[in-house]
Amino acid sequence: MINAIQQLQAHVEKICSFRIDNASLIEPFFEHRVYKKKELLLTEGHRCFEKFFIVKGCVQLCYLKENGTEQTIDFAIENWWISDFMAFPTGGIAQFSIRAVETTEVLCITADHQQRLLKQVPEMDGYFHIIFQRSYAATQMRIRYLYEFSKEELYLNFLQRFPFFTQRVPQYLLASFLGFTPEYLSELRKKLLS
Amino acid sequence: MINAIQQLQAHVEKICSFRIDNASLIEPFFEHRVYKKKELLLTEGHRCFEKFFIVKGCVQLCYLKENGTEQTIDFAIENWWISDFMAFPTGGIAQFSIRAVETTEVLCITADHQQRLLKQVPEMDGYFHIIFQRSYAATQMRIRYLYEFSKEELYLNFLQRFPFFTQRVPQYLLASFLGFTPEYLSELRKKLLS
Repeated sequence: MINAIQQLQAHVEKICSFRIDNASLIEPFFEHRVYKKKELLLTEGHRCFEKFFIVKGCVQLCYLKENGTEQTIDFAIENWWISDFMAFPTGGIAQFSIRAVETTEVLCITADHQQRLLKQVPEMDGYFHIIFQRSYAATQMRIRYLYEFSKEELYLNFLQRFPFFTQRVPQYLLASFLGFTPEYLSELRKKLLS
Repeated sequence: MINAIQQLQAHVEKICSFRIDNASLIEPFFEHRVYKKKELLLTEGHRCFEKFFIVKGCVQLCYLKENGTEQTIDFAIENWWISDFMAFPTGGIAQFSIRAVETTEVLCITADHQQRLLKQVPEMDGYFHIIFQRSYAATQMRIRYLYEFSKEELYLNFLQRFPFFTQRVPQYLLASFLGFTPEYLSELRKKLLS
């Protein structure tokens, strides 16, 4: 737990130059958990009470399509925050699931604990302001890519921006994230390698 | 200007229950502007130094595609914030333009002024934390819709969620936002009316 909190402290300092002098200021608000590969952190259709800081590992944000297949909307790795942020503030019904892609260690905080944390350490609002501003900006760029790029360009752009992902994430998940079938991605990779 | 600041004060209080007792606490950091219909608030390829709170009116966030046509990525109306949030924090090169869809009154703040505002009224970080969390969550839902819905469903879903938009926004912009050609939207509307 101590190492995980230190990692969060370091991230806060990096993002907004605010130094949390004492780990014990924030530690009581978080719960430390380890999820096994494929284990669910959040289940679509259930209430969402928590958000997660990824200490180590990788998770996917996804939902079930009408036809029963799973669509991946996003990934999160070390030092990223993830939740169903529509549902989290009020404990509403999650429209997404979050699942561990590999063994994943997180710090988890409830909306209620977060409110108390923000009262005690209001500088954390500045940290989350920047975190969400970045996430929003990145997601707007992603919408631009979805409109602008061909399937092949989407894949090449993703490889260029997140080269480490292709090592960590199974190909069928990467295909789902890009909106491809696994077969299409496999053909595309062959084509690009030849 | 005073009415505009009061509107922002009311919005801050509504979003995060924080009461800015005196308008003069925040007013010096903002500039009040009115843009004519079709005037640019931000130009793609130029540096982005400002973000905008829409007091009255409507703007589009867009970029030029390779083929010279304009793709609309987003709209903003009363009480929404808009900028190129990737570029804004550092005054980087904008990858989007922002254009007034109708006569539009805004409060505008530079990144530099915002830093000073946040030092003086740190509770505003709490306000922006919630604003960006919502924007991020809404954009993630939009990516879900883009994957999940047929073109017809995208249109019906948009009508249901933003009925007032179709009255305010020209059809060719709505078509662009939905990723349609104007002709396709026109045919779809005829089909749904018949």
